[in-house]
Amino acid sequence: MSWFSKDIKSMDDLFVHNLRDIYYAENQIVEALPSMIDKASDARLKQSFQLHLMETKNQIQRLEQIFNMINLEITSVNCPAIDGIIDEANEVAADIDDKMVLDAALIAAAQTVEHYEVARYGTLVAWAKLLGRPDCANILQQTLNEEKNTDMKLSQLAIGEVNKKAA
Amino acid sequence: MSWFSKDIKSMDDLFVHNLRDIYYAENQIVEALPSMIDKASDARLKQSFQLHLMETKNQIQRLEQIFNMINLEITSVNCPAIDGIIDEANEVAADIDDKMVLDAALIAAAQTVEHYEVARYGTLVAWAKLLGRPDCANILQQTLNEEKNTDMKLSQLAIGEVNKKAA
Repeated sequence: MSWFSKDIKSMDDLFVHNLRDIYYAENQIVEALPSMIDKASDARLKQSFQLHLMETKNQIQRLEQIFNMINLEITSVNCPAIDGIIDEANEVAADIDDKMVLDAALIAAAQTVEHYEVARYGTLVAWAKLLGRPDCANILQQTLNEEKNTDMKLSQLAIGEVNKKAA
Repeated sequence: MSWFSKDIKSMDDLFVHNLRDIYYAENQIVEALPSMIDKASDARLKQSFQLHLMETKNQIQRLEQIFNMINLEITSVNCPAIDGIIDEANEVAADIDDKMVLDAALIAAAQTVEHYEVARYGTLVAWAKLLGRPDCANILQQTLNEEKNTDMKLSQLAIGEVNKKAA
């Protein structure tokens, strides 16, 4: 982003900016997940993170598909939000020894990531429809549904299993 | 947080850490909202941010009430996540001239904040119940409901009014 000229002049520009922002975020999540898989002790939590890593890679491909559909170069912009969310997750994890408490903290961190994505994809779906691209909106909606589903499954895993072990 | 000893030893510690994290976050939101109110052009959006500022101040008081209920000093820990979310909102806003496009971006930013809070309060409610503090859980649930409601209202305002003006 240039600090000398205002680059976002229209809703199209804002849509593209947010597309590049979530593209950066998804790539950071792919980098962060292997360490979360390593740190997780609960077998189902580990499995859930592994599944989400595959899902995230597929979500990145969907974003690349959209860049192609709107004839745009596949690039990212920095996303201080996801950087902050991941930094915070790492800071908290570094401060915990007990494996069960760490699992509970990892779920909380993952749900923060999911909610960030739900917010971003929710906005992107609305903007794609507004801009007359229901084809892009449909693809983004698939990812939005997956993120909501992941968040719900993490809540179930936390309440049904991980939190009880940690308490 | 100390980098030399692992300070979070139990779920109680993790609960308190997250309480101090969201306490920091809510205070940052109170600092950020006046600038968002200034930047907003749509009258209903401005009003919605004003209402949310009052609501957030009340949510801070609820957190202080919980600190008192569990006999803990009212302090905060740094929260890189909310710092990142607010930094990102400021960066994007600084890159937009058109007032209607700026309104759409402000709603997107506010919804990211709301989702961060929904994730945090959702976790805190679950942990408070787990730790045998339904009294704290009830108070946190009130805020969780408000955050979800704010997010829903912002979606309605975006889809029904602000995005159309911006497109």
